[in-house]
Amino acid sequence: IVSPGETDHQHLRFNPLRGSWILVSAHRMKRPWQGQIERPPEENVPRHEPTNPLCPGSRRANGEVNPKYESTFMFDNDYPALQPDAPDPGPGDHPLFQAKAAKGVCKVMCFHPWSDITLPLMQLSEIKTVIDRWAELIEELGPKYPWVQIFENKGAMMGCSNPHPHCQVWASSFLPNEPDLADGHQRAHWKTHGEVMLVEYARQEAVRKERVVVENEHWLVVVPYWASWPFQTMLLPRRHVLRLSDLTAQEREALASIMKMLLTKYDNLFEVSFPYSMGWHGAPTGPYLQEDMSHWQLHAHYYPPLLRSASVRKFMVGYEMLALEQRDLTPEQAAERLRNLPEVHYKDKAK
Amino acid sequence: IVSPGETDHQHLRFNPLRGSWILVSAHRMKRPWQGQIERPPEENVPRHEPTNPLCPGSRRANGEVNPKYESTFMFDNDYPALQPDAPDPGPGDHPLFQAKAAKGVCKVMCFHPWSDITLPLMQLSEIKTVIDRWAELIEELGPKYPWVQIFENKGAMMGCSNPHPHCQVWASSFLPNEPDLADGHQRAHWKTHGEVMLVEYARQEAVRKERVVVENEHWLVVVPYWASWPFQTMLLPRRHVLRLSDLTAQEREALASIMKMLLTKYDNLFEVSFPYSMGWHGAPTGPYLQEDMSHWQLHAHYYPPLLRSASVRKFMVGYEMLALEQRDLTPEQAAERLRNLPEVHYKDKAK
Ligand SMILES: O=P(O)(O)O[C@H]1O[C@H](CO)[C@@H](O)[C@H](O)[C@H]1O
Ligand SMILES: O=P(O)(O)O[C@H]1O[C@H](CO)[C@@H](O)[C@H](O)[C@H]1O
Repeated sequence: IVSPGETDHQHLRFNPLRGSWILVSAHRMKRPWQGQIERPPEENVPRHEPTNPLCPGSRRANGEVNPKYESTFMFDNDYPALQPDAPDPGPGDHPLFQAKAAKGVCKVMCFHPWSDITLPLMQLSEIKTVIDRWAELIEELGPKYPWVQIFENKGAMMGCSNPHPHCQVWASSFLPNEPDLADGHQRAHWKTHGEVMLVEYARQEAVRKERVVVENEHWLVVVPYWASWPFQTMLLPRRHVLRLSDLTAQEREALASIMKMLLTKYDNLFEVSFPYSMGWHGAPTGPYLQEDMSHWQLHAHYYPPLLRSASVRKFMVGYEMLALEQRDLTPEQAAERLRNLPEVHYKDKAK
Repeated sequence: IVSPGETDHQHLRFNPLRGSWILVSAHRMKRPWQGQIERPPEENVPRHEPTNPLCPGSRRANGEVNPKYESTFMFDNDYPALQPDAPDPGPGDHPLFQAKAAKGVCKVMCFHPWSDITLPLMQLSEIKTVIDRWAELIEELGPKYPWVQIFENKGAMMGCSNPHPHCQVWASSFLPNEPDLADGHQRAHWKTHGEVMLVEYARQEAVRKERVVVENEHWLVVVPYWASWPFQTMLLPRRHVLRLSDLTAQEREALASIMKMLLTKYDNLFEVSFPYSMGWHGAPTGPYLQEDMSHWQLHAHYYPPLLRSASVRKFMVGYEMLALEQRDLTPEQAAERLRNLPEVHYKDKAK
């Protein structure tokens, strides 16, 4: 296999979940950067801002007033990309003009009543409550929809338009591209090798160690061998688990703990509230609840855009959009940097 | 097929080049935007800046001095992601840890000696020269490499770190993901339907009209039925053409003209130098030069990030990264807006 020390020459690596390749060109980090500089995230977010529609007691766009919630709070997205009642467009009149119906619901979930807090700075018990709500969402929306996408866009750089800590849930009547790829490739691996791809992968990484960022009894965080974003990680259970709703109380506690550790390291990397998009991929639901989905393993993806500093990001443009994704440091280098960072948040240390 | 007037409910559309789906949720444009505001591009770029390594007569990172070029100018990228002599990493010791050799070259091509000009403001004859150089690149690098990716990152928002008008060429010893998908899907269409997918597509769009942005005797620009970026376009020849190097002199002149028209409309949309990544996809080269590649049709993709204004972009994050790409206006709405824009550049008009 490619030696982790191989940083002077490029090579390709295979992403077995997507069936695609990435280009690792670690020597590129040497080039000077004269391009776009990102603004640092707003540091002085007020704890409570009555005009912010996500705050307790605020009025939202549809006229509803939020309860004075003290923990998590869930509501229907006021501008949903998926609505339950969209008409069927019909199959199209030509093989090059194909359309399909899309129905669904979009919800927003606030993590905490305060606007000036983020997951890594929350208490373990508060993070555990978020995890319990996620599991409930799978139970509540799963029977009706084949796919329930839980995701968090964190930071303005990742299109997040509200500083209040929150995630979103978009449940759909169809299996979207990415989970469809993950389903097909996990299924094929199961058939060919008689093992669950990501259970075997976690087992391998736990032994190989060089891409492990943080681990505990129940969970493992690695920079995947095939990561495309500089500090991309994957969060994996050690046990074979299909969906968030299958996690035991102990596993949820351990998940809260490892999330706090990972996100603390992320914030510590450049001493900034680290932007990312993250989301959960578990076995599809809806009609799939009736099928044997043993080839699936629950996992979360973290996709952070920063590359060199709090203000210099990786641009996935040009060659990446038209040919294939290219990374400027090896996954092993990224994992080592994250692994060596303190597990105490720089803001807590400063206190 | 989906009525172009269908803007109140979401639906899915199929991208036959990638074999993936996109979600069209045009009603989402109604939501207010409180997220990140982009900086406008630098308006006062000096025509000549001796410290800019892309300018005529400048010294580059490797110590070489650029000629005092008066037209286009090509040189090897001083920080190449692909090098000709990278060692073979070997096949890997486990099916989940697969690597492959990657060799290649990266070049930069300046379009013009001036830093304060862009393609839409250049003379037709100057654009024609750029096209001739592109065709030469395919002839020069094609025999050695299966894929020659010509692409332009325009604007700081698209990761471009130098305001001097230029594009890049990355030629590789492998067929990257995106052209590999395009190859497979065009090949399958050819087998199933006995016609060239994109020749038939251009013919259909020329009749349907609703997604056409601009056209001339030899070329057609459409917002593809399956576009994911708000103002994404595809540039297609009407004749069946495999590669840039196969274009006749007349077709190259018509291409210069249609590029100038498209890019003028792009700049006119928000009265700003419009950022984008663009690139050419023609039939693969190298060993493929010996094969029948009739299923291929040459085309260029333009991927511009702006959505609402010069300072509000589309974020392809969260749901898009984890599930599938979602657009906030229909391709027909985008085409209509571009189609109705003047063909005289706002900067020329002001004179
Ligand atoms: O080569 P450049 O212009 O320095 O870099 C730019 O284009 C490359 C190819 O699209 C990308 O990999 C980089 O992320 C981007 O910043
Ligand atoms: O729904 P939001 O947070 O307003 O919007 C954000 O997340 C969505 C889902 O990832 C994206 O489609 C939008 O481009 C992004 O700005």
